[in-house]
Amino acid sequence: MSVTVSATLAVNEALAERRRRGLPVLPLGFGEAGLPVHPSMRDALSAGCDRNAYGPVAGSAELREAAAGYWRRRGLPTDPDLVVAGPGSKPLLYGLLLSIGGAVAVAAPSWVSYAAQAHLSGYGCVQVPTDPAQGGLPQPDLLAAAVEDERSRGRDIRAVIATLPDNPTGTLADDATVRRLAHTARELDLVIISDEIYRDLVHDPGADFHSLAEYAPERTVVTTGLSKNLALGGWRLGVARLPDSPFGRLLRADLLGVASEIWSSPAAPVQQAAAYAFGEPPEIADHIGRSRRLHGIVIREVADRFAAAGALVPAPQAAFYTYPDLEAWRGHLAAEHGVRTGRELAALLLEDYGMGVLAAAEFGENDRALRVRVASSLLYGDTEARRHAALAADDPVALPWIRAHLDRLSEVLERVGPGARTAARVSAPAVRAVPEAG
Amino acid sequence: MSVTVSATLAVNEALAERRRRGLPVLPLGFGEAGLPVHPSMRDALSAGCDRNAYGPVAGSAELREAAAGYWRRRGLPTDPDLVVAGPGSKPLLYGLLLSIGGAVAVAAPSWVSYAAQAHLSGYGCVQVPTDPAQGGLPQPDLLAAAVEDERSRGRDIRAVIATLPDNPTGTLADDATVRRLAHTARELDLVIISDEIYRDLVHDPGADFHSLAEYAPERTVVTTGLSKNLALGGWRLGVARLPDSPFGRLLRADLLGVASEIWSSPAAPVQQAAAYAFGEPPEIADHIGRSRRLHGIVIREVADRFAAAGALVPAPQAAFYTYPDLEAWRGHLAAEHGVRTGRELAALLLEDYGMGVLAAAEFGENDRALRVRVASSLLYGDTEARRHAALAADDPVALPWIRAHLDRLSEVLERVGPGARTAARVSAPAVRAVPEAG
Repeated sequence: MSVTVSATLAVNEALAERRRRGLPVLPLGFGEAGLPVHPSMRDALSAGCDRNAYGPVAGSAELREAAAGYWRRRGLPTDPDLVVAGPGSKPLLYGLLLSIGGAVAVAAPSWVSYAAQAHLSGYGCVQVPTDPAQGGLPQPDLLAAAVEDERSRGRDIRAVIATLPDNPTGTLADDATVRRLAHTARELDLVIISDEIYRDLVHDPGADFHSLAEYAPERTVVTTGLSKNLALGGWRLGVARLPDSPFGRLLRADLLGVASEIWSSPAAPVQQAAAYAFGEPPEIADHIGRSRRLHGIVIREVADRFAAAGALVPAPQAAFYTYPDLEAWRGHLAAEHGVRTGRELAALLLEDYGMGVLAAAEFGENDRALRVRVASSLLYGDTEARRHAALAADDPVALPWIRAHLDRLSEVLERVGPGARTAARVSAPAVRAVPEAG
Repeated sequence: MSVTVSATLAVNEALAERRRRGLPVLPLGFGEAGLPVHPSMRDALSAGCDRNAYGPVAGSAELREAAAGYWRRRGLPTDPDLVVAGPGSKPLLYGLLLSIGGAVAVAAPSWVSYAAQAHLSGYGCVQVPTDPAQGGLPQPDLLAAAVEDERSRGRDIRAVIATLPDNPTGTLADDATVRRLAHTARELDLVIISDEIYRDLVHDPGADFHSLAEYAPERTVVTTGLSKNLALGGWRLGVARLPDSPFGRLLRADLLGVASEIWSSPAAPVQQAAAYAFGEPPEIADHIGRSRRLHGIVIREVADRFAAAGALVPAPQAAFYTYPDLEAWRGHLAAEHGVRTGRELAALLLEDYGMGVLAAAEFGENDRALRVRVASSLLYGDTEARRHAALAADDPVALPWIRAHLDRLSEVLERVGPGARTAARVSAPAVRAVPEAG
C-alpha cells in the first residue's frame, strides 16, 4: 500500500463508483504491479503447503541463503545469517525504525509509509528535498544541514532512508549522488536504510547501479521483496540485508526481538516460494525481464503524453511510476478550474474524469506543488489473458486496451489543461520523457 | 512464538545440540501445535496461488464473511465489516495496543508477548494476578485496585487483556469470573481484548464457554486465528472481531491505519484458505475435533505424571499446556541441586536432561515461583506419518513414541525430584490432573 488507507480508499472507492455507473476510469493511482503470478511461483507455493511450523523468526535457512545469493550476484557479499525475512519489506522497515530507536531523515518526495512509520514508531522524521532527477535520495548537503540543525535543538536523528530506484519519481539517482549520500551519512554517523525493492525494474538492464551498501557497508541496511519485480504484493514477502559489522549484528538482534513480538515470521509456504525466486532460475529471470520491459515501455509512453500536454517530466528510468510537474498549467488551472494545489488537481481529475493519481502532498511535498504520481501498472488489462498478452507483446502500447487507456489519458489532459495551443508555448521540458532503453 | 526470542532460542538451541550429540530430548517448551496440515487446507492454499494483489487491508470480503459466520455460530452476532484479518493474531494484538493508545492490564501469568508488545508500544502494562484455576483473567478485584492505584498516580490504563482459555495454564476461567471481569472493565471504562485463540481446543466440547464479548459487547475485541486449532502457526493468519459500537468503529479505523502502515494484509493465498477454514466444513470440524481430543488426552497424561511426582497441577481443560507447581520440591531442589528459582529449575531440566520447559518468570510471574509451563504439542511424532497416527489413535498415549516421551518425563521427574517416597508425603493436590472429558 503506497499511501494512508484513507487516500487510497478514497481513490479506489471513487473509481469503483464510476465503474458501477458505467463511466470510464483511468487507474493511475495505485502502485500495484498488475501482472500475473508466474506458473513456477504457483508451483513453488503449492509445494510449500505442508510447511505449517512457525520456523525461525529470521526466515528459513533456505530462504536466507537464496537471498544472500541474490545479493552476491549483484556485487554485495552477503552472510545468510545477516538476512532477515519478513511479511513484506514494509514490516521490516517498521521493525528497523523501532530497533534503531531514533528519528529518521527521509526524502521529499518519498513513499509516504516512511513518514507514517516514523510517526507510529514515536521517533518521527525530518524530510529533506531531493535534487532534480536524483529521486529517492535526500540531497546530501541539505541532509547534513537538516541533521545538524535538528541535533543542535536536541533531536536524536539516527538514520536516513534512501529509495533506489525511486518511488514516486521513477528515477534512479546517479552514482555520484549515491557516493555523496554514503559519505555524508558516515560523517553524520547515520544508519542508512536503502530500499531497493525496485532494483530489478531499472528499465535499462545495463544501467550502472550502485547500492549504498557498496559505499557505506558498515552502516547500510538493504531491503527488497517480491512485490514489485514479481508482482506478488499480496503474498507479503520482504528481506533485509543487515550490515556485516558489529553494529549490524546488534541491529539484527534487536530487529529479531521486535519481529518476534510483532509478526513472528513470513508465511512459511511463501518463504519456500521466495527461496525459489531468489535463486533466480532462468524462467524467473525471463519473467522479470519481460515485466521490466513492459513497465518501461508503458510508463515512458505515459510520461510522453504528459510532456506533450506541457508537463515537465523527469525521464522514467525504473519501475512503473512517473512524476509530472504541471506547474506550467498553474494559471490555467486557477482560472478555469479554481485549482491551486496538487490535491485539488488530483480531486478534479478523479471526480470529473475518473483518473486516479496521487498528489505530491501524499509523498511529503508541499501541497502547492502541482505534481502528481502516475502509475502505469494497472493499465495492462483487467483479465489474466490480457496481462499475459501485454507481457508477450512486442509493442504493448499497440494493444487495444492499453492504447485506449493512453488515448483517454491524452484526452483528459487535453480537456483539463490549457490545450495544445498553450502547451506549445511551454519551453522544452528540462528532462523530456524519451525512451532510453529497452 | 510464545516467549522472547532469546528464551525460545536458548531452549531450541540446547535441544538441537543434544540431538546432534545423540542425547535424549524432551521438547515440552514450545507452544507449537505439532500436527499435519489437513489435505483440504493444502488444496485451499494451492487454489489461492493466483491471488497476488494487495487486496483490502482488513482482509478479503470472503474471509471476513467466513469469520463472521464462525463467530455467529458461537453466539456472537458479527458484522463482517467489523472483522479485521492480519498475518497472525499477534500483529493484530500489537496494532490494537497502538490504536488504543494507553497502558494495558494483563494477567500474571500470561503469554509473554502481551507484556513485550505493551513495552514496544511505548505504553507499558501492569500485571495483575489471576485466581487459582481462573487462568488468563486478571482477578477482577485486584484489577480494579491496580487500575485505580495506577490512575491515582497519573498513569493512563486503557485496556485489559484476557486469554480464554488460557496459555500458559491450560485452564478455562468459569462463567462467574468472566462476568465479573466484564463488569469490572465496564466500571473502569477499560477496553477488553479477549484472546480466544484456543477456544476450539477446550477439551470438553460441551463445556460452558462464554466470551467476554457476551457480557461487555460494546468494548470487547475478540481475537483468534488458525495457528492452534489447525496447527497452522507458520501460515500466519489471525482475525479480530471489533465491538459493534461507536467506539468499535473508531477503533477499527485506527487499527486499519496502523495495519496499512505496518503489515498491509495477510498473505492473499492464506486468506483464501482461511475463508475455507472459517466456513467450518465437516472435514475441518472433524480434524479440529481429533486434534482437540489428542491434545486433551496427552496433556492430561503429562499433568498426571507431574502430579504423581508431587506437583500441584491445575486440571488441564484446554489446549496443550499445563502449569505444574513444584513448590513441594523447594527444600529438596535447594539442598540437592542448588535450585531456588523457576528459571534455575528450567535450566537444570534442560541442561542435565534435555527437557525443555519454560519457567513462570517467562510469563510475568516472580521467578521465585517453582512453576513451569509444559506443552505436550511436540510429543506427537517427528514425522508426518506418526502425527497422522497420533491423530487417528484411539489411545494415543499407547503409541510407542508418545509412551517413550511420557516415560522419559516420569524418569526425569523421579531423578530430579525428591522421589516417590517424598511425593507420597505431599497432600493431595488441591486440583488434581484428572481427565474430565474427551
